[in-house]
Formats: sequence, structure tokens, C-alpha cells
Amino acid sequence: MPRFALKIEYAGAPFAGWQRQADQPSVQGAIEAALAKLEPGPHTIAAAGRTDAGVHAMGQVAHCDLTQDWDPFRLSEALNYHLKPAPVAVLACARVDPDWHARFSAIERQYLFKLITRRAPLTFAAGQMWRVNTPLDVAAMQEGADHLLGRHDFTTFRSSICQADSPVRTLDELRVVDRGDGLITFHVRARSFLHNQVRSFVGTLERVGAGAWEPVAVRHALEAKDRSKCGPVCPPEGLYLERVGYDADPFA
Amino acid sequence: MPRFALKIEYAGAPFAGWQRQADQPSVQGAIEAALAKLEPGPHTIAAAGRTDAGVHAMGQVAHCDLTQDWDPFRLSEALNYHLKPAPVAVLACARVDPDWHARFSAIERQYLFKLITRRAPLTFAAGQMWRVNTPLDVAAMQEGADHLLGRHDFTTFRSSICQADSPVRTLDELRVVDRGDGLITFHVRARSFLHNQVRSFVGTLERVGAGAWEPVAVRHALEAKDRSKCGPVCPPEGLYLERVGYDADPFA
Repeated sequence: MPRFALKIEYAGAPFAGWQRQADQPSVQGAIEAALAKLEPGPHTIAAAGRTDAGVHAMGQVAHCDLTQDWDPFRLSEALNYHLKPAPVAVLACARVDPDWHARFSAIERQYLFKLITRRAPLTFAAGQMWRVNTPLDVAAMQEGADHLLGRHDFTTFRSSICQADSPVRTLDELRVVDRGDGLITFHVRARSFLHNQVRSFVGTLERVGAGAWEPVAVRHALEAKDRSKCGPVCPPEGLYLERVGYDADPFA
Repeated sequence: MPRFALKIEYAGAPFAGWQRQADQPSVQGAIEAALAKLEPGPHTIAAAGRTDAGVHAMGQVAHCDLTQDWDPFRLSEALNYHLKPAPVAVLACARVDPDWHARFSAIERQYLFKLITRRAPLTFAAGQMWRVNTPLDVAAMQEGADHLLGRHDFTTFRSSICQADSPVRTLDELRVVDRGDGLITFHVRARSFLHNQVRSFVGTLERVGAGAWEPVAVRHALEAKDRSKCGPVCPPEGLYLERVGYDADPFA
């Protein structure tokens, strides 16, 4: 059976997350239902990252196995047609080898987090950014973030229900960027992440930006290897799976 | 009665436009209803620009007269509280002189239009950009746009139901900017505009970008002073009232 890689964009608000669930809408379920309009199912697709409820993606990657040897462009157009009106879009599609796997072949994940400091409720980006009422010190947040870079036991920064065997991960990038007009973006990159790791980072760094934590307190929290030492986990609506890296880009 | 200027942001999709209507939701109606929660109405507010159905604003300006001498910050917070969950937000509020008028004191309007060329449906910005399927030549669009700058009879580029006394306007700016990733923005500035003028410009320039019109054909259309020589009027969802200019910025 021909295997296809899909690059997928979605707004997470209407979904209970990526993963298919019996009784709630999911991104995986929406895409599998669209595939079933093209070829009789059931279909089971695998994704590089199983995003939580309310989390978005600009560059989620999944793969599917089909019986027909579809032209990749036609396949993406047909899926987008059947996905409407859900806020899910196939941005690119490529034929891949049968042993290529969206999750296990991935060597890097990159997340983007959008935080905005403003008093007024959001209009255009409602549900697409974390809004914070007060100004934040971006330089202090970057100083705190720098303590997290590298290979560490991230027990403090993973959810208590995280199912990963090991809490050790290598954080390759954690940049905090002031975009002006109150918008602050976090750029986070690693081979793989623990459950709630990015939201635990951002929630903790927000406390640093607000002046409630000293930047060095982030290192102390990390070294404690104690979930109770984490700052508040921030809400999901600012989080985007931006890019998944592979040895060779299947969409190039 | 104290007069207050309001700087207002709104997503136009749920509204039949700015102007209050008996049987349909409007931005004016939403704000007047919020004012009535603060002081018994009826309230009638005046805006710098009466945007059409589906058109957005980042910086609409309106004024209202109230009996209490509200602290401007508290007034904006109270209005935002009562406006929820409508996608309308008061970004700033200022006390102004009783003879200051949001519409008649304005000396300049600036519109932004967002066009995106991509095949996939929009997710995050659905209803907030005009999506075009095919690539466009931005340099050719700018060349066409340059023919429109200055003082002209814009009969070709105004709606047949436009109620302005004269079709003569002075266009101070019409820049077409390639933002990458398919996003093209139009920056349009004048003292005042005719009905559907910006959407008539953008729809015509899209034809130039697609290669269907030569850039010089825009000048010929202008010189014809004939509505039937306009290109197709583009949809409203990419249009934003970005800024209203006054001799002295009331929010400074």
C-alpha cells in the first residue's frame, strides 16, 4: 500500500486534541473521516506529536496508507475539500517509503508559543494566544529560560500523567522574543518533549517576567526534580506545533 | 455631558456592518448596548468610518456622550466587560472636548487589506483574509496601483449606491507589500474614501497581479470614469480600518 506523508495545519479550539476519541471531536478523527470519503476505511493515521485539547499546529506531520497510488497534490486537494468546514488544512502531501513513519522517523520538534500582554479581550486571535493583563520583562524571562537549555532531568516540568519512560530530554532552543505591541513569542526546539513540558516552561517563565520569580529560581526548580516546584502550567491556546524535522524533508 | 473618544477593534464576520440596524447584529448596536449597561440609554454613537458587513477594524474611532465623568480607563474596562463574548474590544478611551467629533474631526483614514495566495483553506485566519488560489505578481500590482495615486474622479472605483456628493478624492498612499508565505498586504490612505473604493482597488489590482490586466489598464479604467470599467469588487473579509488620523491624537 502506498504511504503518504501529510503536513497539517489546525486550530485546536474545537477539538479534544489530536488523538481520536469515541465521543469527542479530534483532529485525527476529522482527517480519518475525510480519508474514508476517498477510500473505504477504517483508516488509522499516525502523527509526529499528539497535541492536547486546544493546542494548534502549523506543521503537524502524519502519515496514512492508501490502496490507490494518489497523485499527492490531488490527494491534498481532495482531503481539504472533505475537511471543510473544520479548521484543519492539509498544506502539503508527499509519497514516502513504506518504512517511513511520521512519529518514529522524526528527529526534531519545534513549538511556538504566543503570549500577548494587553488589557482588552482578543478579537481576531481569540483562542489563539495566551492573554496576560500585565507587562512582562522579556530579558528576565530569557535569563530564566537559559537555565533550561541542554540535557536535564525535566521531572519538574512534566505532567504527573506523562507516560514517557524517562524524564531526561535535551532542550536545544528556548528563545523568548519581544515582537512589539505586547506580543511575546517563545521558540522551543528539542528531539522530543515530555507531556505539558512547553506549557510548564511558559507558565514558569511568565512568573519570572512578572517579577514573582527571580530568573535563577528556574534553575532551582529544575534541580529539585519535583513537579510541585513548577510554576503554574499555562493554558493551551497559545501553543502551536510549528515544525517537525526529519533527516530528509519529505515535502521538499 | 462629558464626551469620550473610543478606539475600537472588531472582527466583522458576525456583524451586518458598523451601522445599527433594527433586525441584524451590528458593531454600533453592540457598543450602544454595552453603554446602556453603564448608563440608561438610548445611546447613539458616531464613528469615523461606517464599515460594511464582514469588514474588520483595528482602529475604528467613535465618540459617545455620557452623564457621568467616567475615568477613561475604567470606562474602557467596563465596556469590554459588557461587550463579551462579541469580538469587539475597546483598545483605548479618552475624554475629548464637546465639539470634537469622531467623524467630522478626522483628517485621514488608513485601510489595510490582507490577501493570501494559497491552495489550502484558511484555519487561524478564516474570514480575516481574502484567499486567492494562484500566485500574483506584486510588482505589477504596485505598477497598476501607482496610476491611482493623487487627486482623481474615482467614479470607476465607487459603488453605484455611494452617497458621496462628489466622486473626487485624493489618494495619498496605495502600497502593495509582499510579506512572504503568500501574504500580500495593501496599505491605503486618504482623507476620506468612497463606498467600496478600497475593495474596488484591490479587486482590480488582483486582476493585474494574475496577468489578466496590464498595469496601464488601471489608468484607462480610472480615466473612463465609468463604474462598468472596474475590475471585480473583492470580498470584504480581507479589509481592516486600521487607523483614523486627527490633528491631535485624542489617545496620545
